[in-house]
Amino acid sequence: MYRSHTCGELNMTNKGEQVQLSGWVQKIRNKGFMIWVDLRDRYGITQLMFDEERSSKDLMEKAEKLGREFVIQVKGQVIERESKNPNMATGDIEVMVSELDILNTSLTPPFTIEEETDGGEDLRMKYRYLDIRRNPVKNKLVFRHKVGMQVRNYLSGAGFIEVETPYLIKSTPEGARDFVVPSRMNEGQFYALPQSPQTFKQLLMVGGMDKYFQIVKCFRDEDLRADRQPEFTQIDCEMAFVEQEDILNTFEGLTRHLLKEVNGVEIEDFPRMTYAEAMERYGNDKPDIRFGMEFANLNEVAKNKGFNVFDQQELVVGIAVPGAASYTRKEIDRLIAWVKRPQIGANGLVWAKYNDDGSFKSSVDKFYSEEDLKAWAEETGANPGDLILVMAGETTKTRTQLSALRMFLGNELGLRKPDEFAPLWVLDFPLLEWDEETKRYHAMHHPFTSPKKEDIPLLETSPGEVRANAYDLVLNGNEIGGGSIRIHDKKTQSKMFHYLGFSEEEAKEQFGFLMDAFQYGAPPHGGIAFGFDRLVAILGGQETIRDFIAFPKNNAGRDVMIDAPARIDEEQLKELHLQVKL
Amino acid sequence: MYRSHTCGELNMTNKGEQVQLSGWVQKIRNKGFMIWVDLRDRYGITQLMFDEERSSKDLMEKAEKLGREFVIQVKGQVIERESKNPNMATGDIEVMVSELDILNTSLTPPFTIEEETDGGEDLRMKYRYLDIRRNPVKNKLVFRHKVGMQVRNYLSGAGFIEVETPYLIKSTPEGARDFVVPSRMNEGQFYALPQSPQTFKQLLMVGGMDKYFQIVKCFRDEDLRADRQPEFTQIDCEMAFVEQEDILNTFEGLTRHLLKEVNGVEIEDFPRMTYAEAMERYGNDKPDIRFGMEFANLNEVAKNKGFNVFDQQELVVGIAVPGAASYTRKEIDRLIAWVKRPQIGANGLVWAKYNDDGSFKSSVDKFYSEEDLKAWAEETGANPGDLILVMAGETTKTRTQLSALRMFLGNELGLRKPDEFAPLWVLDFPLLEWDEETKRYHAMHHPFTSPKKEDIPLLETSPGEVRANAYDLVLNGNEIGGGSIRIHDKKTQSKMFHYLGFSEEEAKEQFGFLMDAFQYGAPPHGGIAFGFDRLVAILGGQETIRDFIAFPKNNAGRDVMIDAPARIDEEQLKELHLQVKL
Repeated sequence: MYRSHTCGELNMTNKGEQVQLSGWVQKIRNKGFMIWVDLRDRYGITQLMFDEERSSKDLMEKAEKLGREFVIQVKGQVIERESKNPNMATGDIEVMVSELDILNTSLTPPFTIEEETDGGEDLRMKYRYLDIRRNPVKNKLVFRHKVGMQVRNYLSGAGFIEVETPYLIKSTPEGARDFVVPSRMNEGQFYALPQSPQTFKQLLMVGGMDKYFQIVKCFRDEDLRADRQPEFTQIDCEMAFVEQEDILNTFEGLTRHLLKEVNGVEIEDFPRMTYAEAMERYGNDKPDIRFGMEFANLNEVAKNKGFNVFDQQELVVGIAVPGAASYTRKEIDRLIAWVKRPQIGANGLVWAKYNDDGSFKSSVDKFYSEEDLKAWAEETGANPGDLILVMAGETTKTRTQLSALRMFLGNELGLRKPDEFAPLWVLDFPLLEWDEETKRYHAMHHPFTSPKKEDIPLLETSPGEVRANAYDLVLNGNEIGGGSIRIHDKKTQSKMFHYLGFSEEEAKEQFGFLMDAFQYGAPPHGGIAFGFDRLVAILGGQETIRDFIAFPKNNAGRDVMIDAPARIDEEQLKELHLQVKL
Repeated sequence: MYRSHTCGELNMTNKGEQVQLSGWVQKIRNKGFMIWVDLRDRYGITQLMFDEERSSKDLMEKAEKLGREFVIQVKGQVIERESKNPNMATGDIEVMVSELDILNTSLTPPFTIEEETDGGEDLRMKYRYLDIRRNPVKNKLVFRHKVGMQVRNYLSGAGFIEVETPYLIKSTPEGARDFVVPSRMNEGQFYALPQSPQTFKQLLMVGGMDKYFQIVKCFRDEDLRADRQPEFTQIDCEMAFVEQEDILNTFEGLTRHLLKEVNGVEIEDFPRMTYAEAMERYGNDKPDIRFGMEFANLNEVAKNKGFNVFDQQELVVGIAVPGAASYTRKEIDRLIAWVKRPQIGANGLVWAKYNDDGSFKSSVDKFYSEEDLKAWAEETGANPGDLILVMAGETTKTRTQLSALRMFLGNELGLRKPDEFAPLWVLDFPLLEWDEETKRYHAMHHPFTSPKKEDIPLLETSPGEVRANAYDLVLNGNEIGGGSIRIHDKKTQSKMFHYLGFSEEEAKEQFGFLMDAFQYGAPPHGGIAFGFDRLVAILGGQETIRDFIAFPKNNAGRDVMIDAPARIDEEQLKELHLQVKL
């Protein structure tokens, strides 16, 4: 037995007990006649004590040889500390060591194993096993486990069955790129790793397994952006004999449960908004509704007042930044420079201060009277003390730019509080979106999403206007889940493939099994999938996912710790009937 | 809303209620003036009724058009049945239908959707989504979910953290063959899919995450034997600061929990046996101890009695088959033929009947007296009425053959009861096993397994005799889990790689990250992994795993439903810098 207790649990109730602990040496203070060692394990830190008077010479000598991150095992007695540390769970006691075993030594770690480390990202990733010893990383992994357990217990309690779907499936070049796996036994053929278990969960619905879920790894071979991983985890869910309303209610329930159990937060409102409304009010299909600064369409009050720049644009749109009328010229210039950066790409930013005394001062005073600006204030909801910021241009582009500015200001003004949670359903997404590159429509969600019945006639005339039975769950300005009511008959599914530019052969080759299945009594069904990495990060009050993943890959898709991917033997390639062609 | 109730819940307490049900048409009985339809969903079957007198003509006509596996939605009133069916949960009631909606039609399914189907294995796999509608398959998937939840809740409650390890890792040609995944972004390089998360879980131990588990998919590109899948699921576990005893106790706890919660069985004994003992007593490292027929070494009593065939052999070994003295000559000949088949490969089988009257009759009466055979009976524990079966030859080979015969007879005599559970720890496995093909030692468990301290000197002199800190958990004659205490220092690990024939470069290239990690304070650790597919099957009272997997592959590694693997586009190959060479 290596330990009778963990390093996180001893306190005054254990005073006098003989205990046995194991862990890592976190810190050593050697005063010569006395040596204190902080011993750390997953559960906490306990102070060990060696003392010239009470410890043998051998023991003192052994203790002197300890170094950071040595792994040791000690026996000793729990004693009351002379100077207690109220910030530590074990801060009232220490262990007077009687026996010390060095279980393993350690080289000096390449960065400090502390809350705040001196290790850069690359070093931390290379030595991820040391990084995981640090509380901030370790706690995030434990947190992830807890969220996973809550998800499973909630869904299982609601009658959902976790079914494992296969990882070695078939490549379907629609959507993102697949990772493929050459088959040795089937020469020249490849499996693909799933981008999601979409078709399998639909087949489970056809199979009568009417409430399915799975926490499952998915794979996309995309050029990595920051904070995106080639392998990621989804909470994948599907239900049969449901309408959209049933799904919204079920997963509103899951979200409330998680916020309550994981964050101790009871959510009152769970609002819903159409995609169109979200775009109009926030310029964004995943608005952070924890703060205001809602968009105001200023076409009526800002156009045709002699300001050419606005007159010729499709949309003039503004927001009121609370309390920002006091911004200096320099501060405003910084915002203008920010939106002009290529990442945002705006031409400029018009501003109007609604001063505390009720007067206005703007960058367009030449063109707009006090009265005009008062109208802007009314539309944007600005109060005295606020700063009105206005952009103009093509509708979608301008909304996107102003939305970016709104989020930037939300962060800067501290309006995006990590411990405040505001979920939101965004509904009625467009079915299709136009792709400029390929000059055709793509499925906005995926090709299995059903169009709204009343919009079906529009498929022939204006496909871009057809709304889908598709919905996203947004939390604090992040899309954490998305889903739809699926097509469940062969005829509609064939038609959809046709609209998406599949030939009949392609559709059959890639999704024939699904359309076959639809002929044998497919029930109406729909579902949702949550990005688990992101969900966990947001519940954890963070927006980057990397530390919520035990062994993440870098932006080149590499695992720098194990150094993968790597070359493989010629022998292996030969068995796979493959040759590398650089 | 598609349903107010499921098809499994209505009974007399609902009498008179207006309800709404959805599901599949299981059966139709049309008597002209009355039509009964069995409506099925995941939860059960409810009888629907249409009747000339009370149903409209329209409704009767619609009902007449229904076919098997049509998906329908009905509204109606719960009424008491005239002739009740006590074998059905809903057998006291039926629903008098007032509204009928056909949600989807169905082609005639290629096999019957019943408990016992007329569909062969291939057809069932091709239409797996229909097969899953059948109770025997559906129930096994639901059962699997329940076992998974119990595993997670037990381990989580015991302080284990489920950590997701990566799927895109590095190929290590030791052990089985890896499936590999070409990297598009890293030209000419490949990821490998994990054969198990072994090294990652060890790194988690180095990282201080001292109780880890994961229910996780693993991949092995091996030539498939019956009942083996290229992708399979493991319950993977690891603990730090533990000795073998801690691990045995922890997972004995898990096993007891599962048997109790899943099967309602409280296990009294949880015996342990060394590998050597298991081989001696059962000729098998995963003995089914639910029945006797233990091996008896007959060297002392059967050799040097003038029977040449035995005299020259290393081992003469026998078992007593209870009650089989009454076997006819024909029945015994069948057993002899069975062991002579190439799959078993025995030269023959000597038999001796211990008749009810205490006399003996054997196939070797020429060489052995009644007294001699009495000695055989004593050694094998045979009683009057039993049949003694004896084999001879090289020790290992003969044990394996007799063990196969023992299991065959165990099945035949009904001694392997599916609802009786007998777990067993098999301990002290050999560290290494000699491979005739490559003429070198291989790790019996894996290269990270630690040798028993007292056996380390033998590594230089007789490596085959070194015992490992390795253990298997056996249930009803199946290995359901196996693990070991790991090496946790670089020096021993290097030495082990050396014994296994790795060059220093190879060891560094493939496992350098692990040996690096061992230098930074690796704690003592060990673990175990359970084959989840097999565990679930055995708890479910079955020995074949296929129906406990939603979408299994066939023996050629193909998914015949989606037709994978398959060829991929030239374009895709090019992006991956690959060419197929057949």
